[in-house]
Amino acid sequence: MSGKTNPGNFFEDFRLGQKLVHATPRTLTEGDASLYTALYGSRFALQSADSFAGTLGLPCAPLDDLLVFHTVFGKTVPDISLNAIANLGYAEGRFLKPVCPGTTLSATSEVIGLKENSNKQSGVVYVRTQGFDENDEAVLSYVRWVMVRKRAMEAEVAQSSVPALESAVAASSLTAPSADFARFDCTASGSPHLWDDYQPGEKIDHVDGMTVEESDHMLATRLYQNTAKVHFNQFSEAKGRFGKRLIYGGHVISLARALSFNGLTNAVSIAAINAGRHVNPLFSGDTVFAWSEVLDRAEIADRKDCGALRLRLVATKNLPCAPFPDKDGEGQYPENVILDFDYWAILPRKF
Amino acid sequence: MSGKTNPGNFFEDFRLGQKLVHATPRTLTEGDASLYTALYGSRFALQSADSFAGTLGLPCAPLDDLLVFHTVFGKTVPDISLNAIANLGYAEGRFLKPVCPGTTLSATSEVIGLKENSNKQSGVVYVRTQGFDENDEAVLSYVRWVMVRKRAMEAEVAQSSVPALESAVAASSLTAPSADFARFDCTASGSPHLWDDYQPGEKIDHVDGMTVEESDHMLATRLYQNTAKVHFNQFSEAKGRFGKRLIYGGHVISLARALSFNGLTNAVSIAAINAGRHVNPLFSGDTVFAWSEVLDRAEIADRKDCGALRLRLVATKNLPCAPFPDKDGEGQYPENVILDFDYWAILPRKF
Amino acid sequence: MSGKTNPGNFFEDFRLGQKLVHATPRTLTEGDASLYTALYGSRFALQSADSFAGTLGLPCAPLDDLLVFHTVFGKTVPDISLNAIANLGYAEGRFLKPVCPGTTLSATSEVIGLKENSNKQSGVVYVRTQGFDENDEAVLSYVRWVMVRKRAMEAEVAQSSVPALESAVAASSLTAPSADFARFDCTASGSPHLWDDYQPGEKIDHVDGMTVEESDHMLATRLYQNTAKVHFNQFSEAKGRFGKRLIYGGHVISLARALSFNGLTNAVSIAAINAGRHVNPLFSGDTVFAWSEVLDRAEIADRKDCGALRLRLVATKNLPCAPFPDKDGEGQYPENVILDFDYWAILPRKF
Repeated sequence: MSGKTNPGNFFEDFRLGQKLVHATPRTLTEGDASLYTALYGSRFALQSADSFAGTLGLPCAPLDDLLVFHTVFGKTVPDISLNAIANLGYAEGRFLKPVCPGTTLSATSEVIGLKENSNKQSGVVYVRTQGFDENDEAVLSYVRWVMVRKRAMEAEVAQSSVPALESAVAASSLTAPSADFARFDCTASGSPHLWDDYQPGEKIDHVDGMTVEESDHMLATRLYQNTAKVHFNQFSEAKGRFGKRLIYGGHVISLARALSFNGLTNAVSIAAINAGRHVNPLFSGDTVFAWSEVLDRAEIADRKDCGALRLRLVATKNLPCAPFPDKDGEGQYPENVILDFDYWAILPRKF
Repeated sequence: MSGKTNPGNFFEDFRLGQKLVHATPRTLTEGDASLYTALYGSRFALQSADSFAGTLGLPCAPLDDLLVFHTVFGKTVPDISLNAIANLGYAEGRFLKPVCPGTTLSATSEVIGLKENSNKQSGVVYVRTQGFDENDEAVLSYVRWVMVRKRAMEAEVAQSSVPALESAVAASSLTAPSADFARFDCTASGSPHLWDDYQPGEKIDHVDGMTVEESDHMLATRLYQNTAKVHFNQFSEAKGRFGKRLIYGGHVISLARALSFNGLTNAVSIAAINAGRHVNPLFSGDTVFAWSEVLDRAEIADRKDCGALRLRLVATKNLPCAPFPDKDGEGQYPENVILDFDYWAILPRKF
Repeated sequence: MSGKTNPGNFFEDFRLGQKLVHATPRTLTEGDASLYTALYGSRFALQSADSFAGTLGLPCAPLDDLLVFHTVFGKTVPDISLNAIANLGYAEGRFLKPVCPGTTLSATSEVIGLKENSNKQSGVVYVRTQGFDENDEAVLSYVRWVMVRKRAMEAEVAQSSVPALESAVAASSLTAPSADFARFDCTASGSPHLWDDYQPGEKIDHVDGMTVEESDHMLATRLYQNTAKVHFNQFSEAKGRFGKRLIYGGHVISLARALSFNGLTNAVSIAAINAGRHVNPLFSGDTVFAWSEVLDRAEIADRKDCGALRLRLVATKNLPCAPFPDKDGEGQYPENVILDFDYWAILPRKF
């Protein structure tokens, strides 16, 4: 192999406290926003119309929070997960400000945990990743952990250190976009149901299904400049574990989130990611469905115009969600469940 | 079903004179224009180049008229046709002004006719839909009628009222974009054939064919935020009437219109839609061909620089159009004919 | 056939010295840049981020050089290669200045050579094509030659004239973008390897593979408004030589160039195309791999901040490139090799 190609980091290459500055900065534009709409059919009013966002006092219809997330995530792949076996989880994700088209995103990560697997062939790497705009203001922060291969089984590794992570982002620490949600127009947004109307324990079947094609998920994943090999190379994947290309987990999150518009129409902004797991793989030809559960409802400090809902977003493949398919008492998921995602969304309040 | 998901309106929910304000406003940008080009390969000079449009005195290369149409149409789906059995026709469509990138479109509809079917299981809803820009200026108006299911066979319905619709938009009422077509450059546009060169009765085979893939039509239909289920959900469609996803009829219109560039190169703008029917369904893997017939030629009031052609655009699947495949004497279409679309186009005149 | 559709030019229609002004001008925007990223996953820092380009003194992140090339190329198809049997080669390509989003491109060609084939059924047409911005400044110039059918075997043709073409663009004539590469940030770009680090004779396997879908290449080729029939029409291609749609050769160049990021990360700009041949066809479902060879290294006049590498970019299908698959001693290519492309790239220098 040429010394000039990127072999990626292996488990033994990571050190606790190590800081990585990821290549390549990326300017997200109206073109990316349009592609995001074409890829998922997202319809949340805040991201859909400049005039709607302008009425709330924002300078632009912000880019979808998940487009920002996927772009930052993509930057980390060559350094963190090029030799990954599995992306294990997310925590402590915070969306810190709305991102307008024209913003250039860059990303850094800090290694906050390392734990070798008992088989000595791999280990789990915990990183806290931050995304910045061109003025070096943070727009996003999250933790993820990922199982990474070792280059050599006998390689020495750092001492185990597993970070203490919040089980959920504290409601008291949530912030909402600097927008006046008192001016939110429910006729334009598509639903009268506001923060006050949702109750913890409430479950919503999002009804609709979306079938995924190879072109769709590859266009999306290339848009995010995510280079993970398993998504693109049928020649090698044909000989792999599944025999086919694995769809980027973030594509599943975006599909489920877009489907959730039907039932959570006014959940226009993501404030935080509490947890997330890709519990089964998705492949081309599968049809994605989703349901949500309201886990909690919280006020936001100094805000009467909006509040936060803690939502659990579950996605399935080839299985409608009217019966709310879920893990069993032992935490085992049916094979049709593909995503279990826990996040805080911002909704306007009644007044 | 959650009370927060949209069940759509059923036939008995509509009332004559009812006004519906559709969600969600949508800002169309240069990103949407690029996607439109990528989806159809459209090459009409006016929409393709800012400099070409600027020479004619326009502030921008306007968005394709059909991109505007599909976006407005998409907004109406959740309210009008979520429970539709079939989209039956269009009439009295008018494109009122060129739409620049950056424009935010919103839409309203008025119910102008209702007619229950004799089987009491469904009925036909006639709506006049208007699209507006962010200054509430109308950019588009059209009538469509659609067969919608009843929620309950025994439900009471409004008295039948079928609107009187113009068989074609009157030539005397047509307007053309506020552009100086006397400055139209035929070398740049790609053809010397102007309004004066076309004769009523003339037929043109557009020669080329375009094969449609699942990704293509789903990207397009999501771009228009059109949520009609039949286009996206293979899991449910596999058990449906066709066993596969049905392609959005508007996608067919755009494909046929883009193909028509070859023969109608200078028909750069759509002034009106007289009528339109999707006479057979299109599916992924099919190849679309098209031919046109010049139905009429009309001057436009106070304009010497441009005129209008009334054109009939017929699209087929898997059937080249050199023999101009058409309905028979009894109005029956061959199964390969998928679209019969009647519109007024604007072309520069000789001088 | 209607006299208003474009039959394209046949070999006997071309005359030495003939000048063709191609339709249709096209404004390339941020939307096109986003689509280019989605289609190829390109990550070169200069094109990826406005802030990165701004640091070097450029007014924008320029559009990918190959997006400019494909757009100009697309304009020539209706006049030059609508009746082509094969695109035979490129030479003397020069990228004359970075192109910002918002630029309107137009194209002209001059016939610089003609040679009838001995079977009298076709001949080779050599054209020098130029691309211009809206101020009529040239942004691109290249020669290509293409085998074009004759309309009639007995038609008289021009006397044979084969142009003398440079085997490669002279290093002494190369120019680089007016940017200050001394300010190039290798951490942001993704690699420390600069111009000085590459040696003639060095070979680099770009490791990764990218599988191509029908939707992908058709979206790309329509984006370039390239109308060559073989790429789009499965109905007719099913009866053709390959039984399937042929992928536009330029799509292969862009795929290989994007793959070459892994090993040539700082080769951020293409200065010249020396030669290029599509030695085997690519089809949907194939996976593209690539390798490069450094052919030469040259300084650029009056520039200490950057230099040029002459690179040979070889692409394969369904064949990883670790063993550098290549033509044999007699110049015959294995059937898995699809592209042999020779170009000059600009890289920052050490200082």
